[in-house]
Amino acid sequence: MNSPHKPYVHGRSDREAERLNYQASKLAELLHHDTSYPPGSRVLEAACGVGAQTILLARKSPGAEFVSVDISRESLFKAKHRVSQEGITNVTFRQADVCHLPFRPETFDHIFVCFLLEHLPDPLLSIKCMKTILRPGGTITFIEGDHGSALFFPDSREAHKVIDCLVQLQREMGGNALIGRELWHLMTDAGFAKVAVSPRTVYADESRPEYTEGVKNIFIAMVEGIQEQAIARGLVDNETWEKGIRDLYRTTEQDGTFCYTFFKATGKKEL
Amino acid sequence: MNSPHKPYVHGRSDREAERLNYQASKLAELLHHDTSYPPGSRVLEAACGVGAQTILLARKSPGAEFVSVDISRESLFKAKHRVSQEGITNVTFRQADVCHLPFRPETFDHIFVCFLLEHLPDPLLSIKCMKTILRPGGTITFIEGDHGSALFFPDSREAHKVIDCLVQLQREMGGNALIGRELWHLMTDAGFAKVAVSPRTVYADESRPEYTEGVKNIFIAMVEGIQEQAIARGLVDNETWEKGIRDLYRTTEQDGTFCYTFFKATGKKEL
Repeated sequence: MNSPHKPYVHGRSDREAERLNYQASKLAELLHHDTSYPPGSRVLEAACGVGAQTILLARKSPGAEFVSVDISRESLFKAKHRVSQEGITNVTFRQADVCHLPFRPETFDHIFVCFLLEHLPDPLLSIKCMKTILRPGGTITFIEGDHGSALFFPDSREAHKVIDCLVQLQREMGGNALIGRELWHLMTDAGFAKVAVSPRTVYADESRPEYTEGVKNIFIAMVEGIQEQAIARGLVDNETWEKGIRDLYRTTEQDGTFCYTFFKATGKKEL
Repeated sequence: MNSPHKPYVHGRSDREAERLNYQASKLAELLHHDTSYPPGSRVLEAACGVGAQTILLARKSPGAEFVSVDISRESLFKAKHRVSQEGITNVTFRQADVCHLPFRPETFDHIFVCFLLEHLPDPLLSIKCMKTILRPGGTITFIEGDHGSALFFPDSREAHKVIDCLVQLQREMGGNALIGRELWHLMTDAGFAKVAVSPRTVYADESRPEYTEGVKNIFIAMVEGIQEQAIARGLVDNETWEKGIRDLYRTTEQDGTFCYTFFKATGKKEL
């Protein structure tokens, strides 16, 4: 992120990165403020991606030792780079699938998983796999979104339609974009004790520009990303798509509002 | 609520009242914890109903002087009774419509309004009426629900349908059950400054029995209340209705979850 070698372009880039980090930090505070691990504890971060959460996790628990795994070598490379740039030293990385984790049973004191389950064809099975490498008495934490929670003004049938396209496409690919509401049953079905789920609601209006930017750059951009597939598969026609996207942007302008709820769940492996 | 005169029946009734109060108090904490007024301030509670919020308000600001108004004489009678039973002395009551308030301009330091705007045909006009009796520099607070925020597991088309019936019926009666998301534009359109809106999300699963009871006794009971009208007007057929209500109850049982978001807004009348 800090690159002093190309002054002009990276001057702008730095500001952009700073702005994006600021957005991420507002959301991060909401999602992560109550997650920290005691010094000396061994924590698995499953599906770390490019390390967006890794940095936050590692900073909040400087005495804990993190092992962050991801299935993608490319993502791991970016995550490593990011973490080393930030001067963080309590994280090691490994390439692995959450259902074939290269660790002995009961290796970890805690497990942390963010935005993974929505993509898995059998989230319960994956949770059970992760559970085996958790020591008895250890905790597991999940954070997931739920696209069914998107609520906005002005309301728009077409805007809901384009979001539904994303939900349907994710379902066709074996995932579940409405999984936030299911964390309770997934964790209890997996046999965790003391399961506690809490909603984390993000709300954006003109008085919260960092959040309206987040709605545009994170949520709407994500929906826009499936345009081709959605239209190719006949989930929506061009006209509806365009109106839906326009209406979503409209919720971030003028008197518009946008609201979205994440769910965070923690549970304990019984002794 | 405490009536020592009819021991048996009121024994049960007391327990029931206590349970309902407990529920109300969990929700009340979420909605009201950040509302208190300084000693000596004069506060209008508009549309106090039977005084459910009045008690909470008056207790949190024992030094403030409340004037609670409602259009219904019957509700005011109940509110007065409730408040006097609780030993609260800093509230006076008056029968009045929010658009014909019997007070001189700039009479009040603060105004508090809970679950009113959703029922009004012209909420913006009503807000402007209330604004006239607020002194410059004074604050106004609104709390409203938004039925579009209802999100549950197991998901059910029919459950959404019966909620939509309530939304549609309220719209036909001139109200708006989706008004929570509109507080931002209503308050800015009314010319308030420093408008701040925050979502307040309630979430229920088996580990939170006081909330699942709340979902049943408050939300589902409210939906059930419109069955006759909804069917008489042809908004829904009998079979869909029954499945929808059954599916709503199902979200409060076993592995079910239910989530609902209220919105709270505050603003200031400019000096």
